Amino acid sequence: MSQHIVVIGSVALGPKAACRFKRLEPGSTVTMIDQSSLISYGGCGIPYYVSGDVSDARELCTTSFHMVRDPQFFKDVKGVDVQILTKATRIDRENKRVEVENMNNGEKSFIDYDQLVIATGASPRKLNLPGEDLKGVSYVCNPDDATRIRDGISKGEVGNAVIVGAGFIGLEMAEAFADMWGVETSVVEITDQIMPRLVSPALATMAQKHMEEGGVNFYFGEKVVAIEGEDGKVTRVVTDKRTLDADSVIIAAGVIPNSDLAKEAGLEVHDRGGVIVDEFMRTNDAAIYSGGDCAIVKHLITGQPVFLPLGSMANRQGRVIGTNLAGGDARFDGVVGSFVVKLFESSLAGTGLSLETATGAGFDAISVLLIQMDRAHFYPSKELMTLEMVVEKETRRVLGVQGYGSAKDALVGRINSVAAILKNKPTIDDISNMEMAYSPPFAAAMDILNSLANLADNALNGINRGVGPDGFQELWDKREQGACFFLDCREEADAAEYIKRNPDYWHNIPQGQIYQHLEEIPKDKPVVLVCNTGARSYEAQVMLDDRGFKDVINVQGGMAAIKKYGVDV
Amino acid sequence: MSQHIVVIGSVALGPKAACRFKRLEPGSTVTMIDQSSLISYGGCGIPYYVSGDVSDARELCTTSFHMVRDPQFFKDVKGVDVQILTKATRIDRENKRVEVENMNNGEKSFIDYDQLVIATGASPRKLNLPGEDLKGVSYVCNPDDATRIRDGISKGEVGNAVIVGAGFIGLEMAEAFADMWGVETSVVEITDQIMPRLVSPALATMAQKHMEEGGVNFYFGEKVVAIEGEDGKVTRVVTDKRTLDADSVIIAAGVIPNSDLAKEAGLEVHDRGGVIVDEFMRTNDAAIYSGGDCAIVKHLITGQPVFLPLGSMANRQGRVIGTNLAGGDARFDGVVGSFVVKLFESSLAGTGLSLETATGAGFDAISVLLIQMDRAHFYPSKELMTLEMVVEKETRRVLGVQGYGSAKDALVGRINSVAAILKNKPTIDDISNMEMAYSPPFAAAMDILNSLANLADNALNGINRGVGPDGFQELWDKREQGACFFLDCREEADAAEYIKRNPDYWHNIPQGQIYQHLEEIPKDKPVVLVCNTGARSYEAQVMLDDRGFKDVINVQGGMAAIKKYGVDV
Repeated sequence: MSQHIVVIGSVALGPKAACRFKRLEPGSTVTMIDQSSLISYGGCGIPYYVSGDVSDARELCTTSFHMVRDPQFFKDVKGVDVQILTKATRIDRENKRVEVENMNNGEKSFIDYDQLVIATGASPRKLNLPGEDLKGVSYVCNPDDATRIRDGISKGEVGNAVIVGAGFIGLEMAEAFADMWGVETSVVEITDQIMPRLVSPALATMAQKHMEEGGVNFYFGEKVVAIEGEDGKVTRVVTDKRTLDADSVIIAAGVIPNSDLAKEAGLEVHDRGGVIVDEFMRTNDAAIYSGGDCAIVKHLITGQPVFLPLGSMANRQGRVIGTNLAGGDARFDGVVGSFVVKLFESSLAGTGLSLETATGAGFDAISVLLIQMDRAHFYPSKELMTLEMVVEKETRRVLGVQGYGSAKDALVGRINSVAAILKNKPTIDDISNMEMAYSPPFAAAMDILNSLANLADNALNGINRGVGPDGFQELWDKREQGACFFLDCREEADAAEYIKRNPDYWHNIPQGQIYQHLEEIPKDKPVVLVCNTGARSYEAQVMLDDRGFKDVINVQGGMAAIKKYGVDV
Repeated sequence: MSQHIVVIGSVALGPKAACRFKRLEPGSTVTMIDQSSLISYGGCGIPYYVSGDVSDARELCTTSFHMVRDPQFFKDVKGVDVQILTKATRIDRENKRVEVENMNNGEKSFIDYDQLVIATGASPRKLNLPGEDLKGVSYVCNPDDATRIRDGISKGEVGNAVIVGAGFIGLEMAEAFADMWGVETSVVEITDQIMPRLVSPALATMAQKHMEEGGVNFYFGEKVVAIEGEDGKVTRVVTDKRTLDADSVIIAAGVIPNSDLAKEAGLEVHDRGGVIVDEFMRTNDAAIYSGGDCAIVKHLITGQPVFLPLGSMANRQGRVIGTNLAGGDARFDGVVGSFVVKLFESSLAGTGLSLETATGAGFDAISVLLIQMDRAHFYPSKELMTLEMVVEKETRRVLGVQGYGSAKDALVGRINSVAAILKNKPTIDDISNMEMAYSPPFAAAMDILNSLANLADNALNGINRGVGPDGFQELWDKREQGACFFLDCREEADAAEYIKRNPDYWHNIPQGQIYQHLEEIPKDKPVVLVCNTGARSYEAQVMLDDRGFKDVINVQGGMAAIKKYGVDV
């Protein structure tokens, strides 16, 4: 039985669904329409084109075998008919047809469908401020934007760039401007950290410090109130606290699902936008599917609807839709919210819930922070990795893991391993024994992920009690009040420079000698233990606990975390 | 209640169990004994010391904070008593004591225990050949071996090295000799591939070719029959097929668990050696634990006992034992058999069962092979990765994944993600939708792991039917018989050189033009489709199927696999 499939939108999910369907039913026909003439491009590659990592914008629109994915390509290679500059203006569900408008001449017509796919994507969130349409203000949206931004930089027209929003796109664009082109780059973020809600303040601060070393300026807790220009071209961004010069402004304040067309057709749409679909990616009309950036999926930890606009989601969901259009029963159960972003020589990544989102979702949770080498400590190319695990207290269930590490694949590999089992409600013990393939060039014998779970285990059992670098900052800031006793339990040579800098506040007893020097440690105030990464100070904590000290605080991540976080000790 | 723990063996599991226990019960005492004076070293680092990657052998015996892990260290820092040069000669279970011999003077005495840990490790498998004790013949066993081997090389005494065994240690040592020192290096392996049973012949051959480019010679299917020397020093290795000059010989023919002590004490030991333990790492004597290289654990896919001597296992199992010694109920359920090995600029890794081991364990399974970029195809630092998935036909259960990729962390990251869920009996669909964190510097929108599962899905559904590079080799070898029609379905420019080289056997129709050239394709013989990696040829297969061609074979991995495998096309 031959059928006709219509796909509205041809960037990521649309083409995937269309091509998968055609391979399963070569005898059926597919018409894919798009209001733009730009189709099937890798939008997530735009920051890398702007930075120059990708040399030609056409690479974002070609296959891995270098063919341009244009309508002719889809016709010849995939057997899919594409109509560009064709806007879907209405879905007539009763008669199973889509009203379309020819963007060249405004003529309207209808395309009949047996089954329909809504793949209308998302649009950048606008600030709705005067000046937002000035020349030089861009949304990182499609290859045309990319070309315009890079042309401006490479012509030397951009001395100052201001980026609004410290999420994925904003940070990637900040790196592109500052790293490759040496543009004076500022990021204005309305919340008080980068990647808000996705990572803890501690991890966010570590990444922020690294980006600052790369030349990016951050302004947190500031709201853009105006964008100003001269002769139609942007010159300044005004926040509620300052004015920043700007030859180029990037608005990266998130995206909004394009679900109006679905809503107007009476399909179920979430209150805050986004087509609602079931696990087969089907809307409440059995003949209509949706997915990708215009749809809402289920979060597998919270059980709540979530909007997760990522090219990877579009591709995986697109295949599910393609299969189901051909009579299959493929499922997409939901997401655990994995992410990764490269920031200069570092990366931030995570999966599941952060402590903030876990608490917000009603979990009684704690988080622990660990710093360790990402492979055998004797292997030359090792680097420090910081991981944080969020755990539900009563059940020991792991709700999420986030991390900060090098820009290579070590961090994202750990995150993906946790993500793989997250929907199965793993406990700490599952991660403690997680079988990480071992060889010194790739892992430590006790991999950092195993150690992280062990730390969480010890924390929940009350034998490793501590604070992260942010907690240490708070204690250190009050050092002149003498409320705490700061004890560096590394060897003398490691502690010496801190003793010298802070003779009144910094004390040193190597952990192995603690039992011989107990009388030097006060019992009437909290003892704050510091070593390189938190491992020896944990041993010291066990020893002091054993000798009756009542208030011992271990700085998790130790001096490595303190330095990355930027505490001035 | 204070107790006394005795630990026999102090390399990996022993120290881990001892230290974990002491942290949980600082008031109890631990005595750890070892017949050697070398303790707590990273044996898996030896090849990297020999190669020079690790500059000082002491680094294998120090902590990440550069303290030597000697008996004094264990006493001061960990609170553990260590007796070196002390050999356990008998376990007297009835009286809960261990008979020990002082290796200096031969005196015997007893050490009482409340609970005992047997961590006696494994010994290299000997060939039992004359000449095996000649100077210059080594087992890669402890830091002393490492120092001896490297000293020999660095003094220029080694022009030719022969390595017996093409498993992990053998291959790592081959790289160390050939890569860093330019020694003429040969590997003799009794089976017909490297990493036998662990990876498929196709993956093994790809890695072998890469090592051959690095200067390593391989002799497969050969058995060493004698080791010969002059003046007490090795000079030759004689196999059943040839004689190889050798100034240095490494025997890397596997290891054997040291479980005799346990067996003599009446503890359950596997027929082929290895202490049998339950999921709490307890032997059949409730007061005695064992783990690491001297023990046998359960394979979670086959359900069978398995011997997996890895430093990572020893560490994770050691912690479980330490917890349980202190009254805990930590579990170690078993293993899925993950591994990774770096080979020059490449790596081999895997988890679960290979097709060979799956078939051997009674599964009716197939495997599929995929080559794809390890990140966005437009991102500059991308590299090709080859993955193979082993799937049970009837249930669609994923039994294992193995791969060949760069020497960085991309491959091991994918393997670890699969390993994380392997014991939960994932199906193809679980991997198809596996949530790999996405950003172009780290993954493709459709990650290679998702694509691999999609390929397996299409293969099981009969719509992608093909062979890997080894299967192509067989077909190509018979090309002069004219049994097959070889069709390159890439663009003309890509196919040109092959047409020129093989004008009689190689044909070219770009996939997008197949419908216009159907009459050029014979229907009376198998059509073998080749493209760059197998994606376009799959599209071509769908098109030919649709037009009634009955015998179409897609070369999975395409020209990329053919080249890596080394077929001369």
